[in-house]
Amino acid sequence: MTKFVYQCSNCGKRYQRDEVRYLCPLCSRDYRSGIPLIGVLSAQFDYGAIRRKFSKVKPDWNQFSAVEEKFYPPLPVGNTPFFKTAALGNELGFDNVWIKNDGLNPSASLKDRASFLVVAEANRLKEQTIVAASTGNAASALAAVCAAAGKRALIFVPENAPKAKLVQMILYGATVVPVRGTYDDAFRLSLEYNAKRGGLNRNTAYHPLTIEGKKTVGLEIWQQNHWRVPDAILVPTGDGVIISGVHKAFCDLKAAGLISRLPRLVCAQAEKSNAIHHYVESGIYENAAHPDTIADSISVSIPSNAHMARQAILESGGFSITVSDAEILEGQSTLAAKTGVFAEPACSAVVAALKKLRGSKRLGHSEQIVLLITGHGLKDVDAAMRGIHLPKAVEPTLAAVEVALKARAKKGAR
Amino acid sequence: MTKFVYQCSNCGKRYQRDEVRYLCPLCSRDYRSGIPLIGVLSAQFDYGAIRRKFSKVKPDWNQFSAVEEKFYPPLPVGNTPFFKTAALGNELGFDNVWIKNDGLNPSASLKDRASFLVVAEANRLKEQTIVAASTGNAASALAAVCAAAGKRALIFVPENAPKAKLVQMILYGATVVPVRGTYDDAFRLSLEYNAKRGGLNRNTAYHPLTIEGKKTVGLEIWQQNHWRVPDAILVPTGDGVIISGVHKAFCDLKAAGLISRLPRLVCAQAEKSNAIHHYVESGIYENAAHPDTIADSISVSIPSNAHMARQAILESGGFSITVSDAEILEGQSTLAAKTGVFAEPACSAVVAALKKLRGSKRLGHSEQIVLLITGHGLKDVDAAMRGIHLPKAVEPTLAAVEVALKARAKKGAR
Repeated sequence: MTKFVYQCSNCGKRYQRDEVRYLCPLCSRDYRSGIPLIGVLSAQFDYGAIRRKFSKVKPDWNQFSAVEEKFYPPLPVGNTPFFKTAALGNELGFDNVWIKNDGLNPSASLKDRASFLVVAEANRLKEQTIVAASTGNAASALAAVCAAAGKRALIFVPENAPKAKLVQMILYGATVVPVRGTYDDAFRLSLEYNAKRGGLNRNTAYHPLTIEGKKTVGLEIWQQNHWRVPDAILVPTGDGVIISGVHKAFCDLKAAGLISRLPRLVCAQAEKSNAIHHYVESGIYENAAHPDTIADSISVSIPSNAHMARQAILESGGFSITVSDAEILEGQSTLAAKTGVFAEPACSAVVAALKKLRGSKRLGHSEQIVLLITGHGLKDVDAAMRGIHLPKAVEPTLAAVEVALKARAKKGAR
Repeated sequence: MTKFVYQCSNCGKRYQRDEVRYLCPLCSRDYRSGIPLIGVLSAQFDYGAIRRKFSKVKPDWNQFSAVEEKFYPPLPVGNTPFFKTAALGNELGFDNVWIKNDGLNPSASLKDRASFLVVAEANRLKEQTIVAASTGNAASALAAVCAAAGKRALIFVPENAPKAKLVQMILYGATVVPVRGTYDDAFRLSLEYNAKRGGLNRNTAYHPLTIEGKKTVGLEIWQQNHWRVPDAILVPTGDGVIISGVHKAFCDLKAAGLISRLPRLVCAQAEKSNAIHHYVESGIYENAAHPDTIADSISVSIPSNAHMARQAILESGGFSITVSDAEILEGQSTLAAKTGVFAEPACSAVVAALKKLRGSKRLGHSEQIVLLITGHGLKDVDAAMRGIHLPKAVEPTLAAVEVALKARAKKGAR
C-alpha cells in the first residue's frame, strides 16, 4: 500500500482515509435514488513515493493498492490472459486487436477485482457483513470473496437476474434477497439496510474501492503489454465503474511518471441501456427510460457512476458507441468462433462495437486495440442459446452420421 | 521442445515421433470398443538435455513440450491459480490444503491443456479437421482451441451432455454430432470417421499428446509451490487421463533430476462410475456396469486410460476412493462456501473424498494436500441447483426485507 487521500470527483475536496467511507459528505448530502451518484471519491496516492519505489524488474503492485496486503482475502483474483488475436482482427478489419479475458476470474467476471479490495477493506475495518445490490456479477463476485474470507454477504438482486448467477451466489453461502423491482430498487434497499443495521456497503462506485479494485485490470494490461500503453481499450459499460477503473489505472501510472499518455477509452453500451452514451454525446444526463437488453450485466436505467465515466471517456480522448441486441449476439458468436473466448452478452458488446467502427476513422486500422472481456459466457447460457441451433441426435452408426452431416452441409449448416 | 520418442505403456517398445500417431501398433492391433485402450503411448524425452538446460530462474516450460512452440494455437491456456485454503482445511480436518483451480481455463476446464497441444500437433501435421468424442468438457475445449487456430472441430457427444457444454461447443463453431448412445459409442464413431475420412483424432489417451497436455498442470503446481513436491494430489477421475498426466509431470521432473520423489496420487471416483477404483483395489479390471452419477465429466463405463491410471496411482504410492452423488453435491457446496471456488460436480468429488479421509491415516493431518479442480461450476448450473434452494422475491421495501430475513432465520436458513 501507498499513502493516499480520497478526493471528491465533484467538488475536489480531499479527505483522510478514515474520515469518509462512501461518497463525499458535502456533495452527496441529498443522495437519493433516481439519479447517478454525486461526489464519488477517488483515491489519490503519494505518486512521488510510487515513482521512487516502483520497479519494472520486480513490480510490486501493492504500491498501487489502497488496502494493506495483510488484509487481502485468501482468493487470488486477476492475472487473467492478455493476448493478440489476428483472426478476430482480420474478421473485423483491424490489424492489431488484443483480448484481455477477465471472464477467467474465480466467479467468472471482472467484478471479483472490486470485491477483493472491498473485502480487504472490511477486514481492515473489522466489518463482518458486506451488503451489495447488483444485477448479478458483482453479487456473485462479492459472495465468492466473502466465502473465502469468512464474511457474510447480503445481496439485493433484481428477481430477473440470470439463474446461473443466483445459483452461484447462493452456493457461495451468501444471503440473497431477490427484489421485485429494478436494480435501482435493489441499490436503494441496500443503503437503507446499512443505515439501519450497519455493515459495509460494496455498491459499485458508492464504495470508492470498487473503482480501485477494477483499476487493477488496467495495471495488468500495461504490464502484460510489455509496459506499453495500448492506443484504445473498448469497455462494455453499464454503471460506468469498470471504464472509470481502467481510466484510473492509467491516470495513476501517468501521475507516477511511469507512462506519458492515456489510452483512449471506448464506451460500448446497449442501444436500450444508453444513459452514459447519451451523456457523452450530448453533455446532458438523462436516465435510460426503459433499459431492455439481453446483456443483463450492462442493463441499467441510472448508471451510478455516470459522471466519472463521462469524464474518463472525454479525458482519455475516447468516445462512446451503442449496439443492438442482435449485434451483441452476433458479436458473441464471432468472438467465440474466431478466438475461442466465450463471453457473456454484455462484453460481447465490445466486439459488436469494433465491428461497427470498421472504416469509421475513429479507430486507426493499425492501432493497438484492446477488447476488455468482463464476464464468461457460461454466466448466461440461455442468452447464448438464442443465437444458435442445437443439432438433433443421430443413431450411433457411421452411416447415420454421414447422412446427418450431408444434410447439414446441404442447408449450409455445420 | 526437447527430442522425444514414444514408448508403449504396455509392451515397452519405442517409436520415433512420426513412426506412430495413436496407440502402439503391436498392442492395439485388435483395438475394439468395449475395453480400455491397450498400448497407450508415453512421450519419453531426452531428460539429460532438459537437466542441462532447465533453469528455475528463467524456467522454459517448452523444454517439456512434445510440440514445437511455433505451432502453438493463439489461445493461452493454463497459468491458473494455486493457493492455500485454511478455511477448507479446517472444515475437513487437515492443516495444509491447497487448491489448483483449473476451472479458470478459457473453456472453463483443464481439458483445454490437452486440446491446446493436440491442435499444436495438428498445425505441425497440417491436419485441418480434428475429431473427438467426449462427455462434454474435452469437446468444449477442442472447439475453443480449434476456433482460435482456425481448425475444424468435429465432435461426437452423447446426447445427454449438459446443455451449457453443447451451447459452448456450437458457439465456438464446432460441428457437433449428438449421438443416441453412450460415450463409448461416440468414441468408436470418432475412430470410424477418422479411418474413413481422415483428420486427426483427439480422443483422450488415444492421442498420446492429450496426456502430455494435461501434464502441464503438474509442472505448474511444482513451480507455483516454489519448486516443492506436494505430499498428495487428489484428482477427480473418469477416463484416467488427467491422473496419468499429473503423474507424467512428476515422472518427467524426476527423470530430469529436478525432483527426488513423486506426490501420492489419490483417485476420486463416483460410486457408480468406479471402474478404475475397482481395478486399483482388486487388481482385476471390469467395466462399470451402469455408470450413473451427477458428475457427468467422470461418468464412464469403460475408462479409456484405465491401465495407465492404475499404474500411476500405484507407482506414486497413492490410492483410490469413491464418493456418492450426495457427498459430491455436499462437497461442491462446502468448497464454494469455504473458498469462493465454484466447481463442477466431477471435481467436487475431491472435496468429498478428502472429507471421507479425515482420520483415516491414509493422508497425514499436516501433509501438503492439493485438490485439483478440473472444471468450473458454471458448466452445469442445473446440477448445482439440486443442492440449493432459490429464495422467493420480496417487495422492494426495507420492512419486507426484514420480515423475509427474520422468517428465514427462524427456519435456520440464510
